[in-house]
Amino acid sequence: MSPPRAVVVVTGSELVRGDRRDLNGPFLARELVSSGVSPARIIVVGDSQDELEGALREGLDGELCVVSGGLGPTHDDRTVETLARVLGRDLVVDHELEREIEGVSRGISERLRRPYAEFAPGVRKQASLPEGARSLGLAGTAPGFVLEAGDSVVVVLPGPPPELQRLWRDALDSGPVRRLLDQGQPPQRRTLRFYGVSESAVARALEAAGGGGDGVEATVCARDFEIHVDLVVGKGAELRVEALSEALRERMGDFLYSDDERPVAELVLGLCRARGLTLATAESCTGGLVAARLTAIPGSSDVFRGAVVAYADDVKAQELEVPAAVLAVHGAVSAETAEAMAAGVRERLGAGIGVSVTGVAGPGGGTPEKPVGLVYMHALGPGGGLAASFSIPADRETVRARATVAALHLVRRLLTQNRDSST
Amino acid sequence: MSPPRAVVVVTGSELVRGDRRDLNGPFLARELVSSGVSPARIIVVGDSQDELEGALREGLDGELCVVSGGLGPTHDDRTVETLARVLGRDLVVDHELEREIEGVSRGISERLRRPYAEFAPGVRKQASLPEGARSLGLAGTAPGFVLEAGDSVVVVLPGPPPELQRLWRDALDSGPVRRLLDQGQPPQRRTLRFYGVSESAVARALEAAGGGGDGVEATVCARDFEIHVDLVVGKGAELRVEALSEALRERMGDFLYSDDERPVAELVLGLCRARGLTLATAESCTGGLVAARLTAIPGSSDVFRGAVVAYADDVKAQELEVPAAVLAVHGAVSAETAEAMAAGVRERLGAGIGVSVTGVAGPGGGTPEKPVGLVYMHALGPGGGLAASFSIPADRETVRARATVAALHLVRRLLTQNRDSST
Repeated sequence: MSPPRAVVVVTGSELVRGDRRDLNGPFLARELVSSGVSPARIIVVGDSQDELEGALREGLDGELCVVSGGLGPTHDDRTVETLARVLGRDLVVDHELEREIEGVSRGISERLRRPYAEFAPGVRKQASLPEGARSLGLAGTAPGFVLEAGDSVVVVLPGPPPELQRLWRDALDSGPVRRLLDQGQPPQRRTLRFYGVSESAVARALEAAGGGGDGVEATVCARDFEIHVDLVVGKGAELRVEALSEALRERMGDFLYSDDERPVAELVLGLCRARGLTLATAESCTGGLVAARLTAIPGSSDVFRGAVVAYADDVKAQELEVPAAVLAVHGAVSAETAEAMAAGVRERLGAGIGVSVTGVAGPGGGTPEKPVGLVYMHALGPGGGLAASFSIPADRETVRARATVAALHLVRRLLTQNRDSST
Repeated sequence: MSPPRAVVVVTGSELVRGDRRDLNGPFLARELVSSGVSPARIIVVGDSQDELEGALREGLDGELCVVSGGLGPTHDDRTVETLARVLGRDLVVDHELEREIEGVSRGISERLRRPYAEFAPGVRKQASLPEGARSLGLAGTAPGFVLEAGDSVVVVLPGPPPELQRLWRDALDSGPVRRLLDQGQPPQRRTLRFYGVSESAVARALEAAGGGGDGVEATVCARDFEIHVDLVVGKGAELRVEALSEALRERMGDFLYSDDERPVAELVLGLCRARGLTLATAESCTGGLVAARLTAIPGSSDVFRGAVVAYADDVKAQELEVPAAVLAVHGAVSAETAEAMAAGVRERLGAGIGVSVTGVAGPGGGTPEKPVGLVYMHALGPGGGLAASFSIPADRETVRARATVAALHLVRRLLTQNRDSST
């Protein structure tokens, strides 16, 4: 039996104009694939009445239609009324829901010290759902909901990605979606992640190992130096994917760092935890991004002690005890400064491991000797240190993102090297 | 006259499955907007025959249809043949194009040391275009092309973003696209940004001021406490948008912080620079995100000195000199600790302004007294300080993002308040 067909409709004028990148379509698509539903199409549409109506009509062609956005209190949040019109259903005020939204809105009105009367019309609007819809709960004042319409199940979720992701969990638990998913069969997925090797080398190894096809769909993609290989396994291809993964491990094992979807920050925290080590970062060009990546992981506080972002050189000297001579002779962007920063933060914050990053993020500040995109890193633990650097010209955002990922992998390598040499 | 309507069709199995993020849709949408064309819809679709055919049919509803991807030499690159079928046209080998592609392919065959015969069928396939198409030139071995079909202009471009972006320039210069663009008129845009007020209040003020329509497209959207109003101004609506902006300023002026698209981090850096003040952050729950946001702005180094991310409480005490008594009596998440952190980082990093954030990001660590989503902030400058807090239950990512934005606005308010009181 072929998997149920799904259409994702993402609404937002800023998205269809390209002013903001859509995160919801890809998130929902991945979720659908892993639930055994086939995402046939992602439609991004603005809030113009006609365009939205057209997109929702197409969405209803799918056995599952997931809609994101347009649930706010204002007049250009048109998803609910447009959906009701497309379905030929009335909008009905859900009184229990209205009380819930009122509660949240009264809290907001108090915090903002604005009269509740300003909020009341929006509350009534947001509590009005197409007949037959069931609320999935609130994101702020916006309710997600699910409804059945003929052969289709429609899930409507709020636009802000974290809230959409939270309510999507509830949608998966709802009766109509559960019944639909029971028809599909979640494919197995296998993820292999590599670091320190090129995308084409991994792609060639994959080809040499037999490549995709025959029930295995293989995707290779590069993200800030990491090469992710995703293998989606159709029914009956279990042995084939096993052989393929084995062959990749054999050829590329030195670069393989993960066979699940945990981000490197989580792996690093886990490695530190297992060895009873705490961690601190000393950052210049990444400006706190390494710390932010680590603290994005829930429960990081038992390992992560903190960071010193030393943007100004005298902060590097005073707070990280980088010797003035090192700064004067080698400069702030140098292997020597990186090493001193790692040692300094380890000492100052009393951490088991210190990791540092210093580089030229650009667009200004580059010189022929130290061009934009040159970055030095150092990781230092109780058993010694590891240094790394790269120099790849790119825009500021890319340089910072790559440096962040590279610094995390440096800590990972430091910890796994030590482990290897001690066994 | 309303601007020409465009549909963007993006093909790629890895895109519709969410394995990779689509960069072409947003790029093309921005390009279309700035050329005076209205992007009505971005459709992301895989390489299944039926889905692709459906998407292309819809694309042809637009006066301009831009298609990306599916131009490669292999059998699952189906864009050209499917487009020909949808248009009811034959595929015709373009012999000049064939010679061009053959030249590139012979080079590749030599580099890879594979016989050219392996490439010949792909060359023939890639040189076959729907009748009436004109090549825009090659990206690798894939030709971009443009054709006219009834009232529509169709532009077909290769999937890799850098090559798509290069050939898009050529498409803009082609006769059919130029003629279409001459009908449109690049719109003016106006952006107003508010903080400290609800989305619904801004929407109501916009309504009261006359709202969108009559040549003005108005979008209100909330991003982590900020309310952005985007006004896209059609031909002849210049006076109307002027009046609308004026009315919004009058009603909501207290909350208006920007009338351009610069992010708050950039405004804060500009305010500091204008007053000759440097800036440092002391962060707990945001884990470096405030510093990362500031250092994302090129040229931030003349204002931003650095940050202390004090995740562990003893780091707060030692590095930020938060008195042990304050931590013991009020706790790490308190207005008192926030104030001490701001003072501490200002002192330690020798900055003109110190701003701090401490809160419960969750999902763990909440208590009835200090629930997940409770965040305290403090900004301290030479003329005094400002405190703020919020308590809104949400997921970890949202709490951290909101706290980051709120901390930046706190600095902005500190600096603009001082300016107001000194004038």
